Amino acid sequence: MNGIENQQEEFAALLEARQVEELLERLKKLPPVEIAELLGELELPATLEILLGLPAELQGLTLSYFDIPMLHQIFDAMDRRTFSRAFVAMDTDVRADLYQDLSRENQLQLLPFLDKQTREDVIHLSSYEPETAGGIMTTDFATVDMEMTVDEAIEKIRHDSPSRKMIYYIYAVNQEMKMEGFFTLKDLILARPSTRVKKIVRKDFVYADVNEDQESVARKIEKYDLVAIPVLNFLGQLVGIVNHDEAISVIRAEHTEDLEKFMGILPGEPELEYLDRPAWMHFKNRVVWLVSLAGVGVISGMIIHRFENAISSLVVLALYMPMVADTGGNAGSQAATVVVRALALGQITLKEWGLVIWKELKIALMLCLVLGILSFGKILFLSYEAEIPAAYNLIDIATAISLALALQVVSATLIGAGLPLLVRQLGGDPAVAASPAITTIVDITGLLLYFGTAMLFLGIH
Amino acid sequence: MNGIENQQEEFAALLEARQVEELLERLKKLPPVEIAELLGELELPATLEILLGLPAELQGLTLSYFDIPMLHQIFDAMDRRTFSRAFVAMDTDVRADLYQDLSRENQLQLLPFLDKQTREDVIHLSSYEPETAGGIMTTDFATVDMEMTVDEAIEKIRHDSPSRKMIYYIYAVNQEMKMEGFFTLKDLILARPSTRVKKIVRKDFVYADVNEDQESVARKIEKYDLVAIPVLNFLGQLVGIVNHDEAISVIRAEHTEDLEKFMGILPGEPELEYLDRPAWMHFKNRVVWLVSLAGVGVISGMIIHRFENAISSLVVLALYMPMVADTGGNAGSQAATVVVRALALGQITLKEWGLVIWKELKIALMLCLVLGILSFGKILFLSYEAEIPAAYNLIDIATAISLALALQVVSATLIGAGLPLLVRQLGGDPAVAASPAITTIVDITGLLLYFGTAMLFLGIH
Repeated sequence: MNGIENQQEEFAALLEARQVEELLERLKKLPPVEIAELLGELELPATLEILLGLPAELQGLTLSYFDIPMLHQIFDAMDRRTFSRAFVAMDTDVRADLYQDLSRENQLQLLPFLDKQTREDVIHLSSYEPETAGGIMTTDFATVDMEMTVDEAIEKIRHDSPSRKMIYYIYAVNQEMKMEGFFTLKDLILARPSTRVKKIVRKDFVYADVNEDQESVARKIEKYDLVAIPVLNFLGQLVGIVNHDEAISVIRAEHTEDLEKFMGILPGEPELEYLDRPAWMHFKNRVVWLVSLAGVGVISGMIIHRFENAISSLVVLALYMPMVADTGGNAGSQAATVVVRALALGQITLKEWGLVIWKELKIALMLCLVLGILSFGKILFLSYEAEIPAAYNLIDIATAISLALALQVVSATLIGAGLPLLVRQLGGDPAVAASPAITTIVDITGLLLYFGTAMLFLGIH
Repeated sequence: MNGIENQQEEFAALLEARQVEELLERLKKLPPVEIAELLGELELPATLEILLGLPAELQGLTLSYFDIPMLHQIFDAMDRRTFSRAFVAMDTDVRADLYQDLSRENQLQLLPFLDKQTREDVIHLSSYEPETAGGIMTTDFATVDMEMTVDEAIEKIRHDSPSRKMIYYIYAVNQEMKMEGFFTLKDLILARPSTRVKKIVRKDFVYADVNEDQESVARKIEKYDLVAIPVLNFLGQLVGIVNHDEAISVIRAEHTEDLEKFMGILPGEPELEYLDRPAWMHFKNRVVWLVSLAGVGVISGMIIHRFENAISSLVVLALYMPMVADTGGNAGSQAATVVVRALALGQITLKEWGLVIWKELKIALMLCLVLGILSFGKILFLSYEAEIPAAYNLIDIATAISLALALQVVSATLIGAGLPLLVRQLGGDPAVAASPAITTIVDITGLLLYFGTAMLFLGIH
């Protein structure tokens, strides 16, 4: 099962040769995720032909791995009755997402073909906000009554879930479906058949509230090494569970959001992949920051104007403005990145801000020494034959500029490290104090340092 | 168990009042991860006192949540015999990591106190590379013989793993410990007691090679929604399993690495947290990029020099160089971020590069329109009273500069989107073609566009 790439070609060949029967037999042996992958490579008609050749349960399990746009295509291409059979076997959370996304009319066309239980389940699940525990939970879970014996419990599990789906925990509930505790299949096997469930049940359990944000749910699953977390409503009733694999997808989505924040990109529509998002949507998400940065840029513009005379009297100054700005931006962004991440991973707390700044200061001093010396040499190398007004000499100029650069590296690093801490202190998300913000702020401080140093050191005015 | 923050104060109070007995009773009811959290807040002596008050198994489970530096402190503070009792109960992967990190001398002091099985296990596990399947796997897993009956299998599990640890899958092996297949506890419960294991075993299984990179292992766990993946050696023998929670930590670590790459920070020592890393280590990881960028900066320096006359004849040109450079850098970084992420998530493939560039082109055109118009207004606003040589007029200058900026936005966006694809094509990691790289490259193209446009449009030379 580890050589799926090679398989893909074989399957393509079989399809080419119209040996569909053979192909289907082979597919039935694969895990649904791989069937979905293979079908994803094909044109819609071929996908449908093969899909319909599979047993309804396998159809459902496979569809559970398709994305929403793909599911729409399949929904539109199948007749409602056939689709409903697969729909019943889909993962409850995926099918609820699809149902939520269907037009009212399509929903009404589908419902009549669903059995009562599925119908209620879909309507129930699609009533929750997408990014909450309720939105990502599944209703595939096993419950037993506290009063049952171990034997009765095993019987109930046999009866309730004969499907291929895996069971991790069994949840013990009372008459009102209030969750009382849980136990594992192992507890069940280790216990004597006549023992009562309430003897082996674990009453201390971590749970998620049905309206809890999905990221906090994922963090609980991660922190307590859970395979699944029970989701309770305000009455303490067990309404669903969130599985460990959901936690991973939430963490991945979280990461994408962070990265985008880092580049000042507004969080996009998570359900749409890069190519599925229309260009204007990408544009919308990116333009806001770029425009506001351009706005802030007016300030740096004013500053530069303020020193227009300095520049005209010593043009070489203009040449090294970008160098100082860029180096500062990069150093600042690096510090910001490291601090934001350390905050996110809980490696540092706000209380430790002093330690952070102190460490960054030491780092900055090492950096500014290296970079200062480099830029000094760079200036001598680049400008050795530049025309310089008699009043000045290159050595002084190089010294002034590399001094400015050194100061810029230090201030930029401290700003880059400090800003995320400040934002968090003010209750905001540190990630917004990232690359673009830092770059812009550091541009302004950089220009002030640059011309300030030049004027003091070279006596320009 | 969801209100740990409040608990922390209560426990602090109990400790304050020296009601250690009471405190210990309360702690024993908590999951080890929370005990570890609470102890992490205390001074070493208090941590030790409480730790030693807990039963050895709970000590071990709790220590499994401490980081390596903390474990060293505890190792040094305890006598070897006492420590060995907790050590035996620790998660096998964590204790192997600690053992690897101990001095040869300390290792030799510890070994005599370990039972044969633990000793062999630790030496075996610590022989693998840290970032491979072997390095992160645990040896806590249940195996049965293919020839056993379901009843015998249950007996063996009862006997082998009475501990609190959870069992997800049971692995069926032959006489040579070669893995033949696996089944779940549920399969066991659903089967008749007299059935032979080989009747219910699932022979198609995903596995990891013991030398496989940890990221690829995590991806398999994620893709196949596994709770644990078996790790086989080159003989196909089952040597360990990697659990789903390991997958999550690997994914987190992977993300930190990506973020750092994005800012041109060399991957740091993952086992050391931000504050535990000495400043020079941070410095080492950051300086490389900054220096190489400064190096590349020489090129932009030369370009600017090349246009020195243009600047001196029209100083206002110098004022808007940073604006054009920054806007380009930001737009390019945004495009790079989105494309790198889409590649990482498998949302786009190299084959689709055409679609990506085409989409980015559309986005860039919208961006450059908005930003071009803005900068035009900005220039009129900022420079309306600047002294301009008679040969030129502000409108032309503003037009030229905002035209340059528009071109810069388009080229920067395309470079930002194209470079990661190119790097991947050449077999590299797209993430290295991120913010700092883009910013620097785009600076150079930007300057060329800037002065090029100015000279053509304003007829400077």
